[in-house]
Amino acid sequence: MSKTWRVYLSGEIHTDWREQIETGTKAAGLPVSFAAPVTDHASSDACGAEILGPEENEFWFDNKGAKVNAIRTSTLIKDADIVVVRFGDKYKQWNAAFDAGYAAALGKPIITLHDAELRHPLKEVDGAALAWAQEPSQVVRLLKYVIEGTL
Amino acid sequence: MSKTWRVYLSGEIHTDWREQIETGTKAAGLPVSFAAPVTDHASSDACGAEILGPEENEFWFDNKGAKVNAIRTSTLIKDADIVVVRFGDKYKQWNAAFDAGYAAALGKPIITLHDAELRHPLKEVDGAALAWAQEPSQVVRLLKYVIEGTL
Amino acid sequence: MSKTWRVYLSGEIHTDWREQIETGTKAAGLPVSFAAPVTDHASSDACGAEILGPEENEFWFDNKGAKVNAIRTSTLIKDADIVVVRFGDKYKQWNAAFDAGYAAALGKPIITLHDAELRHPLKEVDGAALAWAQEPSQVVRLLKYVIEGTL
Amino acid sequence: MSKTWRVYLSGEIHTDWREQIETGTKAAGLPVSFAAPVTDHASSDACGAEILGPEENEFWFDNKGAKVNAIRTSTLIKDADIVVVRFGDKYKQWNAAFDAGYAAALGKPIITLHDAELRHPLKEVDGAALAWAQEPSQVVRLLKYVIEGTL
Amino acid sequence: MSKTWRVYLSGEIHTDWREQIETGTKAAGLPVSFAAPVTDHASSDACGAEILGPEENEFWFDNKGAKVNAIRTSTLIKDADIVVVRFGDKYKQWNAAFDAGYAAALGKPIITLHDAELRHPLKEVDGAALAWAQEPSQVVRLLKYVIEGTL
Amino acid sequence: MSKTWRVYLSGEIHTDWREQIETGTKAAGLPVSFAAPVTDHASSDACGAEILGPEENEFWFDNKGAKVNAIRTSTLIKDADIVVVRFGDKYKQWNAAFDAGYAAALGKPIITLHDAELRHPLKEVDGAALAWAQEPSQVVRLLKYVIEGTL
Amino acid sequence: MSKTWRVYLSGEIHTDWREQIETGTKAAGLPVSFAAPVTDHASSDACGAEILGPEENEFWFDNKGAKVNAIRTSTLIKDADIVVVRFGDKYKQWNAAFDAGYAAALGKPIITLHDAELRHPLKEVDGAALAWAQEPSQVVRLLKYVIEGTL
Amino acid sequence: MSKTWRVYLSGEIHTDWREQIETGTKAAGLPVSFAAPVTDHASSDACGAEILGPEENEFWFDNKGAKVNAIRTSTLIKDADIVVVRFGDKYKQWNAAFDAGYAAALGKPIITLHDAELRHPLKEVDGAALAWAQEPSQVVRLLKYVIEGTL
Repeated sequence: MSKTWRVYLSGEIHTDWREQIETGTKAAGLPVSFAAPVTDHASSDACGAEILGPEENEFWFDNKGAKVNAIRTSTLIKDADIVVVRFGDKYKQWNAAFDAGYAAALGKPIITLHDAELRHPLKEVDGAALAWAQEPSQVVRLLKYVIEGTL
Repeated sequence: MSKTWRVYLSGEIHTDWREQIETGTKAAGLPVSFAAPVTDHASSDACGAEILGPEENEFWFDNKGAKVNAIRTSTLIKDADIVVVRFGDKYKQWNAAFDAGYAAALGKPIITLHDAELRHPLKEVDGAALAWAQEPSQVVRLLKYVIEGTL
Repeated sequence: MSKTWRVYLSGEIHTDWREQIETGTKAAGLPVSFAAPVTDHASSDACGAEILGPEENEFWFDNKGAKVNAIRTSTLIKDADIVVVRFGDKYKQWNAAFDAGYAAALGKPIITLHDAELRHPLKEVDGAALAWAQEPSQVVRLLKYVIEGTL
Repeated sequence: MSKTWRVYLSGEIHTDWREQIETGTKAAGLPVSFAAPVTDHASSDACGAEILGPEENEFWFDNKGAKVNAIRTSTLIKDADIVVVRFGDKYKQWNAAFDAGYAAALGKPIITLHDAELRHPLKEVDGAALAWAQEPSQVVRLLKYVIEGTL
Repeated sequence: MSKTWRVYLSGEIHTDWREQIETGTKAAGLPVSFAAPVTDHASSDACGAEILGPEENEFWFDNKGAKVNAIRTSTLIKDADIVVVRFGDKYKQWNAAFDAGYAAALGKPIITLHDAELRHPLKEVDGAALAWAQEPSQVVRLLKYVIEGTL
Repeated sequence: MSKTWRVYLSGEIHTDWREQIETGTKAAGLPVSFAAPVTDHASSDACGAEILGPEENEFWFDNKGAKVNAIRTSTLIKDADIVVVRFGDKYKQWNAAFDAGYAAALGKPIITLHDAELRHPLKEVDGAALAWAQEPSQVVRLLKYVIEGTL
Repeated sequence: MSKTWRVYLSGEIHTDWREQIETGTKAAGLPVSFAAPVTDHASSDACGAEILGPEENEFWFDNKGAKVNAIRTSTLIKDADIVVVRFGDKYKQWNAAFDAGYAAALGKPIITLHDAELRHPLKEVDGAALAWAQEPSQVVRLLKYVIEGTL
Repeated sequence: MSKTWRVYLSGEIHTDWREQIETGTKAAGLPVSFAAPVTDHASSDACGAEILGPEENEFWFDNKGAKVNAIRTSTLIKDADIVVVRFGDKYKQWNAAFDAGYAAALGKPIITLHDAELRHPLKEVDGAALAWAQEPSQVVRLLKYVIEGTL
């Protein structure tokens, strides 16, 4: 009975890094089950008000949505064996750093994925990670090595 | 391997809200496994004395039954990914609020389900929840969004 | 170095049961440090909006206040050695039952304090408690026995 | 024996918000013990290489420093009763969001402190918080209310 | 996907109470997976020395065996949803009481199974249990009620 | 600031072993704070009914008392650095074995104290202990060594 | 539904002890799923730099690799029911002792596997273990006994 | 009320590194309380047999001593804020690596202290540490920085 590794892909939602990792992992035949936040930006913003009723106040509109998303994300991060956190070059991405801190406190192994130019502002996050990758293909290689033990 | 979400449906046992949620979830094809307390009121009250022997003293009659029910409820709440707590307009329903507190201390995502008129007395419970729904259909939509990521 | 026992007094805020327990405990010379929620009803309701800004929507007005109160109550319940939960004959008191569930999941010893007529609706809460008292003076005697070992 | 509340002040290090909170808290006579990360930017960046030896590679220079800082910050956040996280209008501040996630996973009550214009990018962090303040004076009032129970 | 309940049957090994419970549970068609300590007395005593080498000193002979058995018992108690602890009328049976304490500290629901005459010396163990049964058939009924919700 | 070690003395209440350990420890000038169950047998049996009201049914009489005692014992065992468990030659002493199991699951270092003739029935308890002493004076020497590091 | 036991085989990578245990376990028909660190020495050393980019500094070369390996080992040790730790006669093998300490703090049952001549330097590790075996065949017999209950 | 930091000094017992750190810390006026294993080699080996009775079998002689030492070390490591682990150039020192693994699983910040030539065999231990120092004076500087925030 081989273990299926649960990998949570947190962070940036505007490029196809998740697809690259999932495709590469599948191509490598690795037993991995991926999870992620809702990556449709509009749905992610609107979910609270859309399902539970409208809010005039912007803060509560956002708050309602953020908490609905947290039902999903907190559950899936707790379930995960490994948490990959991706930072892109746009937006504040505080939710990604929040997920990293959340995963760190739970003792989850963290892999960060970001360009070299984000090195300095991400030093605390990288300091809590077990690996820093710059390319999705490196994450695939990491998963292959971690799971199968071969380079 | 897709995750089956375990959802515990706590609280009110005199309307068909559980059936509505279960039917809606099934119709939506969601991978959810539901659990609940024993919802047959008479059995729930009598179980202790019925199985383990009669009690003359009313306190111990109730105590015996409550603890037998706790074998079920504490186990299933610990197992749950999400806890939905429903409050109706009758009875004290302190067991529902107790379950909410129990779930909160375990860090479980909580969804409350109640009418707007119960807003004020439920403020502490709602304050610990990630979502407040007024209709079972909203809970189904929440589960759909949380699990599939689509509105 | 004798231990100071930390006792959290949760629940009903409209009678002087806390004062009775505190006075009795002091008279008995017991090393107890008491904590409690904010018992001024008006402040407890208004604190969120008063400190953090007004809310037109009643739900968020309550939610804001409930969460500010939770900063206090969750911290003090986690700190407590023993949690006493009092139920009176008025109001919904779901926050008291919530506290009991919260304390139970943390493994805190619980003492309930309520009249016999609340026996049935409180059976789940009493089932999770280590003692049910009907009078504040009994709680004082329990503390005396638990701490000093004498009746 | 009154409890001394331990409050960790995380985040932005370029304005005097910590001093304002500490001064206000002292003026109010509250029993609070504050902790914080090292707020001298230059020391915080250089500490790893300065103490443990130079690094040519910028990533390891930063990594070494971040981990030395983590000895302090992880210990003090674990010690804290309440974590206040401040976001300013400059820099990435991913370490602040990381601290918030870390505190959330540990079940610490979180107070965020930031301007309204950061509302949207901070929605996940605010969603995990029990209070959002916009001014240091509000944090002081929160502490006064939480600790003393008076507005 | 229905849950298979894991039930650990601790204690007395000289009567057929385990078989009775297992047979009754099977007859009732309940989804239960049972676990137990090694119930062959001779093997249980000899396992340490038999597998790992002889011991002249009786204390270490016993110690070696007890620890080998603990590999099994500690793992299976941690795995269990429910722990049933049976006390008979012979022997010291301190291992049964030890298991009960172990299960209690882990927050496992405990069912005790013993005759009325053992009531007084077992009061602390019964005090930590959620049900006291006198007959194996009662344990089967408890499992049926807890799992299926019907008397 | 030297650490005061908290030592819980569980088990047998009919000989003066606790006094011997406390006297010896004091004579050795060790910084130890001792705790124990209520050792007055009559009070320990009667406490529940005496404080909370009489019970005709013997089981509930005992149950009520056992749970009142558990408020004390569970709190003090959780507080302890070290748990000493003493078994004598009389009575069932299942509460002592229960305490040992409870302490073991909490990861507390356990010292057992009993005669050699109880070796076999106590093998599981001894197997979970870090030391087996036969005389109270050995426990004092253990505490001295553990705390001061000198034989 | 019979339990599949998860056994982690930590330590020495230069002899075929893992194969012996796996072969023996298979021959005995035991339901065991084995896990281990990467046992190819060259890959284990090079993995960090090979996947994530070269390092000139030897410390960081090693650090990078060690952390990539930790993604695998920490996850699998946390998953394990039983941890077997093998010490050979060569090399420092501090990683094996580290794994043993890690497993001990998590409360995992530990089996050590080493020759008698390593007795003294391994006394702390053996002191935290539930069994010391000298031959792989003894580990197989232990697993057979622990799982099936027969010698 | 300033925090007194608890620092556990694990490992090598044949040089004066502990004294150097303690002296340096005192000279710097830092609020630190140090703890350590028993550093008298002869006492540490003999403690079990000396206090609890002689053992002919060398394994049990060692086992008895190791477990008595574990009462001290496991308690003090759990108490510690920071764990410093020192490796020297002699002996197997598996207990030091065991302590490091134990501390890592508990989430304690670890500082390693060893010469550069031990880099490779200690890579897993260093990989779990937040700082690697080569000189006791560096540990003092780390403590100063971590506690006072100044270089």
